[in-house]
Amino acid sequence: MSAILIKNGTVVNDDLMLKADVLIKDGIIIEVRPGISEINPEVRVIDAANKLIIPGGIDPHTHLQLPYRGEVSVDDFYKGTQAALAGGTTMIIDFASKPRGTLPIDNWRQWREWADPNVCCDYGLTVAITSWSPLIAEQMTELTKPEYGVNSFKFYMAYTEYMVIDEEFYEGLKHCAKIGALARVHAEHGPFIDNKQKELLEAGVTGPEGHPQAHPEEMEAEATNRACVLAAQAKCPLYVVHVMSKGAAKAIAYHRQKGQVLFGEALAVGLAKDGSGYYGKDWMKAAGLVMSPALSKDPTTPDALMGFLSCDQLQLTGTDNASWSCAQKKQGLHDFTKIPSGLNGLEDRMSIIWEKGVHCRKINPMRFVAITSSTAAKIFNCYPKKGRIATGSDADIVIWDPKRSRVISASTHHHATDHNVFEGMEVHGVAEVTICKGKVVWENGHLNVERGFGKYVPLRPFSDHVFGN
Amino acid sequence: MSAILIKNGTVVNDDLMLKADVLIKDGIIIEVRPGISEINPEVRVIDAANKLIIPGGIDPHTHLQLPYRGEVSVDDFYKGTQAALAGGTTMIIDFASKPRGTLPIDNWRQWREWADPNVCCDYGLTVAITSWSPLIAEQMTELTKPEYGVNSFKFYMAYTEYMVIDEEFYEGLKHCAKIGALARVHAEHGPFIDNKQKELLEAGVTGPEGHPQAHPEEMEAEATNRACVLAAQAKCPLYVVHVMSKGAAKAIAYHRQKGQVLFGEALAVGLAKDGSGYYGKDWMKAAGLVMSPALSKDPTTPDALMGFLSCDQLQLTGTDNASWSCAQKKQGLHDFTKIPSGLNGLEDRMSIIWEKGVHCRKINPMRFVAITSSTAAKIFNCYPKKGRIATGSDADIVIWDPKRSRVISASTHHHATDHNVFEGMEVHGVAEVTICKGKVVWENGHLNVERGFGKYVPLRPFSDHVFGN
Amino acid sequence: MSAILIKNGTVVNDDLMLKADVLIKDGIIIEVRPGISEINPEVRVIDAANKLIIPGGIDPHTHLQLPYRGEVSVDDFYKGTQAALAGGTTMIIDFASKPRGTLPIDNWRQWREWADPNVCCDYGLTVAITSWSPLIAEQMTELTKPEYGVNSFKFYMAYTEYMVIDEEFYEGLKHCAKIGALARVHAEHGPFIDNKQKELLEAGVTGPEGHPQAHPEEMEAEATNRACVLAAQAKCPLYVVHVMSKGAAKAIAYHRQKGQVLFGEALAVGLAKDGSGYYGKDWMKAAGLVMSPALSKDPTTPDALMGFLSCDQLQLTGTDNASWSCAQKKQGLHDFTKIPSGLNGLEDRMSIIWEKGVHCRKINPMRFVAITSSTAAKIFNCYPKKGRIATGSDADIVIWDPKRSRVISASTHHHATDHNVFEGMEVHGVAEVTICKGKVVWENGHLNVERGFGKYVPLRPFSDHVFGN
Amino acid sequence: MSAILIKNGTVVNDDLMLKADVLIKDGIIIEVRPGISEINPEVRVIDAANKLIIPGGIDPHTHLQLPYRGEVSVDDFYKGTQAALAGGTTMIIDFASKPRGTLPIDNWRQWREWADPNVCCDYGLTVAITSWSPLIAEQMTELTKPEYGVNSFKFYMAYTEYMVIDEEFYEGLKHCAKIGALARVHAEHGPFIDNKQKELLEAGVTGPEGHPQAHPEEMEAEATNRACVLAAQAKCPLYVVHVMSKGAAKAIAYHRQKGQVLFGEALAVGLAKDGSGYYGKDWMKAAGLVMSPALSKDPTTPDALMGFLSCDQLQLTGTDNASWSCAQKKQGLHDFTKIPSGLNGLEDRMSIIWEKGVHCRKINPMRFVAITSSTAAKIFNCYPKKGRIATGSDADIVIWDPKRSRVISASTHHHATDHNVFEGMEVHGVAEVTICKGKVVWENGHLNVERGFGKYVPLRPFSDHVFGN
Repeated sequence: MSAILIKNGTVVNDDLMLKADVLIKDGIIIEVRPGISEINPEVRVIDAANKLIIPGGIDPHTHLQLPYRGEVSVDDFYKGTQAALAGGTTMIIDFASKPRGTLPIDNWRQWREWADPNVCCDYGLTVAITSWSPLIAEQMTELTKPEYGVNSFKFYMAYTEYMVIDEEFYEGLKHCAKIGALARVHAEHGPFIDNKQKELLEAGVTGPEGHPQAHPEEMEAEATNRACVLAAQAKCPLYVVHVMSKGAAKAIAYHRQKGQVLFGEALAVGLAKDGSGYYGKDWMKAAGLVMSPALSKDPTTPDALMGFLSCDQLQLTGTDNASWSCAQKKQGLHDFTKIPSGLNGLEDRMSIIWEKGVHCRKINPMRFVAITSSTAAKIFNCYPKKGRIATGSDADIVIWDPKRSRVISASTHHHATDHNVFEGMEVHGVAEVTICKGKVVWENGHLNVERGFGKYVPLRPFSDHVFGN
Repeated sequence: MSAILIKNGTVVNDDLMLKADVLIKDGIIIEVRPGISEINPEVRVIDAANKLIIPGGIDPHTHLQLPYRGEVSVDDFYKGTQAALAGGTTMIIDFASKPRGTLPIDNWRQWREWADPNVCCDYGLTVAITSWSPLIAEQMTELTKPEYGVNSFKFYMAYTEYMVIDEEFYEGLKHCAKIGALARVHAEHGPFIDNKQKELLEAGVTGPEGHPQAHPEEMEAEATNRACVLAAQAKCPLYVVHVMSKGAAKAIAYHRQKGQVLFGEALAVGLAKDGSGYYGKDWMKAAGLVMSPALSKDPTTPDALMGFLSCDQLQLTGTDNASWSCAQKKQGLHDFTKIPSGLNGLEDRMSIIWEKGVHCRKINPMRFVAITSSTAAKIFNCYPKKGRIATGSDADIVIWDPKRSRVISASTHHHATDHNVFEGMEVHGVAEVTICKGKVVWENGHLNVERGFGKYVPLRPFSDHVFGN
Repeated sequence: MSAILIKNGTVVNDDLMLKADVLIKDGIIIEVRPGISEINPEVRVIDAANKLIIPGGIDPHTHLQLPYRGEVSVDDFYKGTQAALAGGTTMIIDFASKPRGTLPIDNWRQWREWADPNVCCDYGLTVAITSWSPLIAEQMTELTKPEYGVNSFKFYMAYTEYMVIDEEFYEGLKHCAKIGALARVHAEHGPFIDNKQKELLEAGVTGPEGHPQAHPEEMEAEATNRACVLAAQAKCPLYVVHVMSKGAAKAIAYHRQKGQVLFGEALAVGLAKDGSGYYGKDWMKAAGLVMSPALSKDPTTPDALMGFLSCDQLQLTGTDNASWSCAQKKQGLHDFTKIPSGLNGLEDRMSIIWEKGVHCRKINPMRFVAITSSTAAKIFNCYPKKGRIATGSDADIVIWDPKRSRVISASTHHHATDHNVFEGMEVHGVAEVTICKGKVVWENGHLNVERGFGKYVPLRPFSDHVFGN
Repeated sequence: MSAILIKNGTVVNDDLMLKADVLIKDGIIIEVRPGISEINPEVRVIDAANKLIIPGGIDPHTHLQLPYRGEVSVDDFYKGTQAALAGGTTMIIDFASKPRGTLPIDNWRQWREWADPNVCCDYGLTVAITSWSPLIAEQMTELTKPEYGVNSFKFYMAYTEYMVIDEEFYEGLKHCAKIGALARVHAEHGPFIDNKQKELLEAGVTGPEGHPQAHPEEMEAEATNRACVLAAQAKCPLYVVHVMSKGAAKAIAYHRQKGQVLFGEALAVGLAKDGSGYYGKDWMKAAGLVMSPALSKDPTTPDALMGFLSCDQLQLTGTDNASWSCAQKKQGLHDFTKIPSGLNGLEDRMSIIWEKGVHCRKINPMRFVAITSSTAAKIFNCYPKKGRIATGSDADIVIWDPKRSRVISASTHHHATDHNVFEGMEVHGVAEVTICKGKVVWENGHLNVERGFGKYVPLRPFSDHVFGN
C-alpha cells in the first residue's frame, strides 16, 4: 500500500481545528502537522485546499443483511458498506441479533461468517440478548474476551420474538455492569404495541398511518425512562439507541443531570424528518418510513434533537440502516404490521448531519466529528485508533467539502434499495474523497474497493469512557 | 533548561487515558508514548508509577491583588500563583476590573504592570466592562488585537460601582459577538441586592447571616436566566461565572438544550460547601464564606452542581480566588455589607474537585481534566498549547497521586491569608509534582519558583469552540 | 324589575352541574333548585331545556376608551359593555392607567367619570402604578378603602411612559402585600424592546412583522420569571396578565409548584391564534393582531395554554380588549412601532373558550365557568355575589347553548371596531340569553340595555383567595 | 334526632370563608347564613366563636380490618371509624381487595358484610381488580349499577398476589373509561421490588432499612409515569394513590399540563415524615414506618408534596390506614419482607395537614377543605351531599379549633394499635366537635357513637369531575 499526503486542508478533530497536512503510510497516519513536504515521488499527494480533513464516520447502528420474518434486508454487508464509504463512513457496528431461542455466541459466529468475506470497511459487533438464562450470561462473559471482541449487548423492550421483560433486562444490566460491557437498549413498550396493533387492525386501520399510532412517541419516552431507571438501579451504564422523540431525549437528559452514565443516539432520519409522511397519499413513500420507534408527530422534533446533540444531552448519531425493497415493503400492503420495519441512511448520514447541524449553524465542525465518529470510538473503546486524525491512528479519513451540495436520490445512491427515504433532499457537505485504512476507496464519485477489504475490529470491555467513574 | 522524562505513569487527557512516558525539553512536550528510554544522562527522570500525568490546572477565574473599596486582596500575583502551583494549577485567567469611570485599556495596562513582574505561572486577562460608550466599544475592539491579547470581557449585573444595566449589557453582548470575544457575566440582580441590604440593616440584621439573605439564590437564578436570554437575542455566546445554585445551573441547561452557546463555571467552594456556615456561631468562619453569589442554602446543591458538571451542563471550574485577611474581613463586624467579598481556592481547587468528582465516582479522570484545564484552554483559545499533554504543548504538567490524601489547613497552605475556608477538609488526590513550562516548581512539598517566571498569554478572539457554529 | 324563572336547564357552577331551575327577583337570585313552579303570573318564565345556565362571564382585563398617544380606543364604555353582554360577559375589570406623572386617585376618578354614565354592565377597576413615590404609596393605601373599592394595582415592566424599573416594582410589591392588594403585572422587558425596535427600524423592517421580532416570546418568559421571583422576595401574591407563551406559563407553573401564590391569565386571542398572521400579506389583518406581548411564533402554543388552564397552572381568562379602527391602526403603516397596540375580544371570549376548551374536550363545563367568571370573582373578592349561580348572588346569568355555533364577523359583532381579529372563525357555544342584574339584556340576537345600567363594584382588599395563607 | 344550631363560627367551604351560623335537622343541613336565631328550645346550640366550621374529612384511602398473609389489620371497621371521628373525619373510602383468584363482586359483598354492622361513619368502596378476564370486566360493569354503587377500581402494579401486568392494566383502563369508573393505581414496579428484595436478603440486609432500598422512590416515579402514559393511551382518567416522592408528583404534574385528567393523592405520613426513620436504631419504630411506596429518602420531600398540593398538581389527601400491632410487625424481625406493610393515620390526618399546610402558611383554610374532603367528594361523585357545608348537604361537620394544639400519642389515640407513627408530634388545629350525620359523635374528648351508625354510600359512575370533558 502506497503512501498518501493530504495537503492544504483543515484537519478537524473533536477538540481542534487546524490547518495541517496529513501523511499516511501502510494504512496508518504517520504525521499530522502543517507543512509536510512530499519527499518521495511514490507518495500520492491529494490537495485538500478549502476542504476539511475529518475522521471517517462511524455508524454505531446498522442491520446489514438482516434476516427478519423470512426476508433479508437488501443492503448486505457488501452493498451496505459500499454505500457507507460513498458517504464518508468507514466503520460500522452491526447487530448480531436473532430471536429468542438462539445463543449469543452462535449468532456472533453467524454474523462473522456473513460479514467477513463481504465488508468493504471495518466493523464491530454488538450482540443482542433476546432471552435470559445462566447460559446466556456465561456466553456474554465469554464474548467479552479478546477472541470474540464484543463489548456491548443489546436488549429489546419490544418485538415479541426479541424482547426481554423487565426482570430479565434488570438481570442483564447487572451482568453487563459486572463484565464491563455496555448495555444498549431499544426502548419501546412491547406489550402495549402488540395490543394497540390489534386494536387498530380491528378498527380497520391497515395503512402505514397505523404504524405511528401503534408506536406513539409517548410510549417511547415511557420505555426510555424505564430503561434509564432500571440501569441506575443496576448501576450499569446504558446506551439508548435511536432516540426519536423529545420525550425520550428529555428522559435521558433528566437522568444524566443526576450523574448517571447514559448515552443517547439520534438517527439521521430522525434529524431530517418528522412523521407527517406516514399520512401521505403515496403508500410506498409512507411505507418506506416505517421503522420503530416511529418518526415523531411533532414537526419541531428534528430541530429539538439537534439541540440535544449540540449540548451533549444526546451524544452520537447512527442510522439503524435496515433497508427493504419496495417489493418487500409491499408485504404489508393490507396490514401495516406486516410492513418490514427499517430504512436506509448509511450513505447519507454524514451529509444530513452536516446540513442540519453545521450548515444550519447549530453545531460547529468539531462537534460534527464528535457525533459522527469520535464519541462512538470512545464509547466502543477503539479510540484513538478510530475516530481521530492523529499519528498512529488508522488512516480512515474523509476529505469533506463543506460548500458542495448534492441532492439525495435512489437513482444515484449506492444502496441496494430501489427507493430512498431522503429522495429529493438537498444537503450541503459532501464526502469528496474517502480513505479507508490508507486506501482511497471513494473519489470523483467512484468506488474503488473490494469485498472483504474491511476487517472485524475486536472491542475491549471496560472502556474508560463508559466505566471510568 | 534541562530535559525531563516522566516514566511509568498514566497520561490523562480529556479524551484518553494511556500508559505512556512524557519527554519534556525547553519548556515544551517533545514526545508522549509508551517506552521512551532515557538516552541522555542530563535528562532528569521522574518516576510516576501508579500516578497520573495530567495537564496543569487552569483557573479561569481569579482576582489577585484586587483593589476593592480601599483594600487590596492579600493573595497578590506572587503569593497567589505560588499557591496555584502548590495545588497543581499552572495557569490563571485574572480579571482586570475597575469601577465605572475607568477605561478598559488603562485597566489592562495596570494589571499587566502588577502581574508581569510577579507571576510564578502563566496568565491571561479578561477585562471587565463597567460602563458603556462608543469609546468603551472601541477599546474592546482594540484589546482583541494581538498586541493586547484579550478575547473575553466581563459584565457585572450587580455591584453598584461595576454593574451595567440591561440596555448596556445587551449592547455589550452585540459588540462581543461582532469582535469574536467571549462575554462573561456575573449574574445577580444588583438593584434588588442593594434594596435588600438596606431592608436587612434596618431590621437589625448585621451579621454574616445577612449576606445570603441579601443574595438569595433565587435571584441568582433569575439573573442567570436573564443573561442567557439577552445573549440569545444578541446572538452572542455567553460564559456565566460562578454558578452557585441549582436554579442558575438549570437555567443554563435549559437554554443550552435549545442550542444556545453557553458555558457555566462552577467554583471549588460551591462544589464543597453549602451556605449553612453563614449561620454558624464563629463570626470569622461565617465572614470567611462571604462571597457573591452566596453559597446555596440547599444542602444538596454541591452534589447537584457536580451532576451538572458530569453531564456537560456546566463545563468548567474556577475559584473566584479573592482572599482577605481576618483583619480585612473584620471591617464588616457590625455591618455584613462591609465584609469584603471573596475567599481562597486557588491552591485547593484541583484536590477538591478530585475528591468530590472522581473519588466519589461522579466523574472519570478524563472529565476531571476537562473541567479543570482542557475546556478552559479551548474556550479561551489557547488549546492545545495549554490543557493537553501532547507533543508540542507547553510542559505544564502535574504528577497526580489519586490515592494520597491531605487535610487542608491555613497552617500549611501557600496562600497569603491567615484562614482557609476549607480548613479541616480531607481531600483525596494530591499534586505530587508540578511542572510549569518545563521546570519542576513544586516537589516534595516545596516550591521552587521565582517571581516573574510566568508570562502573559495573549489570547486570540474567535475561538472555534465559542464562535465555530 | 319583574321576576324571572329559568326552567329545565342545567345549572353549571365551578364545582357542580345540576338540573335545576333558577328564580330571580329584584336583580338577585332567590332560589336554585329542581322543580320550582311559576306561582306568579308576573314571573317571566324562560325555558332552558338542553341549555346550560352559567354565571355571566367576568372579563378581568379590558381597556375601554383607552387614551393612548393621542388616540382613544374605539370600544368605549358603552359600546364595549354592549359587546360584552352580547357575548355573555356581565362584568369587566378595567384598568385606570395613565402614564408616569399622573396620580392614582386622579386616574381612578377620571375612569369613574368616563365609565359610570356609560357602562351597560357592572365593572371594577384596577389602578395602574406608573411611577413610585411615598405619595403614590399613600394613594394606593387610600384606594383600598371602601369609598374607592380598589383591591388590585397594575405594574408595567415595559412601555417607556408606563413602566416601573425593578427597584420600583419591588417596592410596589412590598406595599401591595402590606395593604392586601393584588399586584398585577404586564411582564415584558421594556428596555430590550425599545432597543430592538430601533435595531429593526434601522434595518429597514417597518411592517407588522417587526412587532413580534421586537417582542420575542423569550423576553416575555424572562420578564414573567423575573416578576415571579421579585414577588416571592416581596412575599406578595402576583397576577400575571396576558400570558401569551409557553415559556411564560412554564415560569408561573414552576414557581407555583414551590407554593408561591401566583395567578396567570390567558387571553381569548392567545387561545385562538398563533403569530403567523403577523407575516401575512394583508397589512390590515397583520396590523390588527399587533398587541403586546405578541402572539407566539409556535403553532402549538394555543393548545398548550389551554393545557395550562385545564390543570390550574393558569387560572383565568381575559381579553385585554383595546380596539382600534383600521384608520387608527394605519398610523403605523410605515412604522410598526406606531401601530396602536390592542385588539378586540370582549364579545367573543366566552365562545372562543368554549370552542377551544369544552368543545375540544380539553376541559369540562365547570372548569369553563371557573376560568371565565368564578375564579375572577374569587381573586377580586366579589364572590359569590359574582361568579356563581346561588341564592343571594347577583342575577348575572347566561343561558348558554352548547350545541349552537356561530361565525364571528365584524359585520355582525357589537364592537365599535370595523374589523375583528377572529373574522371567519366558527365557534360552538353561544350566549342565547344574557341576564344582567336580573334584566334580560340580550335575547334573540338583540340587545336591550341602556347606558349607565351597570354599576361600579367596589372591591375589598385581603381576599381570602389571595391573602388567606 | 334533635336539631343543632352552630353559632358564631366561620364556615369554610373550598370556595368561600364566611361568618355564618349552621342549622341542622334530621341529619341534614337546613340553613347556612349569618344570624340564625334559636327559636326552638329543643335545638341544641353550640357556640363556635373563634372556631371554623368545616365539612367532615373524607379519607379516600383506608384498609380497615384488612386480611393480608394470614393476619388482619387491627383497626377494624369499628375502631378505625371511631379514630376517624375523633380526628374529624366523617367518611372513608375503603378498598375491597383480595388476591388474584377472587372475584370483584364476591369481594364487594364480603366487605359490606364486614363493614355494615360496624362502621361508625359513612363509607364507600373501591374494588380492587387483581386479575383480568371477561368475567372480571363484566363484574366491573355490574358493580357500577346503583345496587352496588361502585364508581372506582384499583389496580396494583406491585405485590405478586395482587398485581396486574401492563397488558391487563391497559385493558382495565379501557374498560374503566367505557363504564365511567375511575381507575386508581398503586404505582410501583412489582417485579423489580421482588428481585431487589431477594438481592438484599442474599446480601444479608434483613432489617427495616432493607424496605426503602427495595422500594426506591425512583421506581415509584417510574411506575407513576408508566401508569399515566398508559392511561393517556386508554383515554381513561387516572387517580394515583399515595404519591410519596417528588419524582412521582412531577410525573403527574407533567402529564396534567398536557391536559390529561389525573388525580394525585398525598398521604398524611408522606406530608409529615421522610424516610430517615427506617435507619433508626429502634427496630419497632423503623418497622412501624414500613409501608409501600416507602417514605422518601429526601428530607425536602414532605414540604415539596405540600407545594404540589398547594397548586393543585396533587389534589387530595388520604392515609392508607392499615395498622398492625407491634406483635404483628415483629413477624418481620429477621426478614424485612415479612413486616406487614402499613401504618395508622386516620385519626391524625386532619391535624397533620392543618399543621403542615395552613399553620405553616403554605395553603389557606379553603384549600385545606378541598384537599381533606371536597375534592374527594367531587371525584367520587357524592358532592355536595358530602364535602360541603350547604343547605341540603349531609350534616357531616367539624368544629375546628385552629389555635389549639395537641401532641399525638398511642397512649391517647383511638386506634386499635399499640403504637403511632406520629408519636410525639405536636400539631396545631384540632377537631373540637365532630358531627356525623347530624349527631354529635365527638366532643370534649369523648366519643359517643355506636357500631353501625355509619351507612354505605353508593357512588354513581361518570362523575362530571372525572368524565365531564
